[in-house]
Amino acid sequence: MTDKEPIALLGLGAMGTALARAWLAAGHPLTVWNRTPGRAEALAGATVAATPAEAVAAAGLVVTCLLDGASVDATLAGADLTGKDLVDLTTGTPADARDRARRVPGRFLDGGIMAVPPMIGSPDAYVFYSGDRDLFDAHRGALGVPAAARYVGTDPGLAALHDVALLSAMDGMFAGVAHAFALIRSARLPAGDVAPLLAEWLTAMVPSVYRTAEQLDRGDYTTGVASSLAMQVAGNATLLRTAAEQGVSDELLRPWADLMARRLAGGHGAEDTTGVVDELLIG
Amino acid sequence: MTDKEPIALLGLGAMGTALARAWLAAGHPLTVWNRTPGRAEALAGATVAATPAEAVAAAGLVVTCLLDGASVDATLAGADLTGKDLVDLTTGTPADARDRARRVPGRFLDGGIMAVPPMIGSPDAYVFYSGDRDLFDAHRGALGVPAAARYVGTDPGLAALHDVALLSAMDGMFAGVAHAFALIRSARLPAGDVAPLLAEWLTAMVPSVYRTAEQLDRGDYTTGVASSLAMQVAGNATLLRTAAEQGVSDELLRPWADLMARRLAGGHGAEDTTGVVDELLIG
Repeated sequence: MTDKEPIALLGLGAMGTALARAWLAAGHPLTVWNRTPGRAEALAGATVAATPAEAVAAAGLVVTCLLDGASVDATLAGADLTGKDLVDLTTGTPADARDRARRVPGRFLDGGIMAVPPMIGSPDAYVFYSGDRDLFDAHRGALGVPAAARYVGTDPGLAALHDVALLSAMDGMFAGVAHAFALIRSARLPAGDVAPLLAEWLTAMVPSVYRTAEQLDRGDYTTGVASSLAMQVAGNATLLRTAAEQGVSDELLRPWADLMARRLAGGHGAEDTTGVVDELLIG
Repeated sequence: MTDKEPIALLGLGAMGTALARAWLAAGHPLTVWNRTPGRAEALAGATVAATPAEAVAAAGLVVTCLLDGASVDATLAGADLTGKDLVDLTTGTPADARDRARRVPGRFLDGGIMAVPPMIGSPDAYVFYSGDRDLFDAHRGALGVPAAARYVGTDPGLAALHDVALLSAMDGMFAGVAHAFALIRSARLPAGDVAPLLAEWLTAMVPSVYRTAEQLDRGDYTTGVASSLAMQVAGNATLLRTAAEQGVSDELLRPWADLMARRLAGGHGAEDTTGVVDELLIG
């Protein structure tokens, strides 16, 4: 016997399997279901359910970690969720989460996992949660096992919004890094020589997000600007010319340059680059 | 008298003025010239030259920090650079620097400043230098005063290449951050609440550049991949859908998604995202 609460986990992809291992290692009774059964049987210590309905019936806390919203719908179609607490860790949009919250009979919490599967169980992994606060508090112990739990609000869409915001920022950084490495390789230099310079530079630039946030929240983009939008646009021409010279596509760089130029054309040359955020809000 | 070597500095914009102050504070005899003379006269301790030729004649080390390559040409047109060491800190492309190296009569060093003017004199500021190694060694003391000096090679274009590569990566990161803040504002949340999450997340993701560099240098993009290109492309659909739901333009996100999709269509689904770098090299 264990005093750890039972969990039903639906979906054993790479992420689901990592979650399952973490809960099993912590002593939680775990009932699993997966569309293709091989993965479930490979999990020593877990009870394998023959159907999603059987898995759902086995625990008060039901966790889904599937391919997409449609798979969650299909998987839960025959299960009785009455009185169950559903936590959906499937990647989705804010609207997906709000929609699901309206449709489930019991309490609902949406989660956005800020980790790749190998990070699960490490101190760096965490999950954004939003939705029913009582559900979060009731299962906080179990939820905190695979990754730290960060509750961001009662609106069920907020976990996905935070998740997507951070992943979008990361994609931008990766795009910039890809362009930088393309430039370096166009000159036949080892990427490894530049990696420490890139890492150091990007790490040093990250804290600028605090200043940008402050400017956005104050609505003041012009006080104490070190490098104005007008200067940034002028300087950016060198980046685009260098890409052309080196035979590197500027497709990842051009949209930022175009956006800054659009903001500048709107008469905002004395601003910081912060104002481009407003240009992106098309309602 | 001082044992610090004399310097001639042409150009007193925000950056030139910051450099001048650093050299004056360190005791270097400094002769300055600026197109509009007011700025030079405001620099206590500097000798103001009436013409670029007069400034160039005053020191063996001549530093230019002007608007662009054309301004450097125009400024130096009437000056005798024979026997002079020229260091150009004007922002330019690798080809600009190589071209100038071919045209000057004396030794030439190109520099790319990795700092905004207020950072000059702080330990975080540094300058990439490339070109004549003897020039760099002869003036290393003076060059290291306003910012740490990092020599990256005899090819005069390498300083600009490194400079532009790092700035391009930064632009990508800023583009990603702008999109993230647009999402946050679309939900009417304070940007300040999300800034620490963004900063922490991006800082945690920066070290991935080491792995990307290793993959590029080894030419192996498929060993030990935690999240394959195929999974990334699938996951990215959620980022684009979220942008659409929230009324945020996807113009900064779309090119990265398109590039990954192009690489995927080329049959590289099992790779890490590293392979997109090769897609950018259009020769």
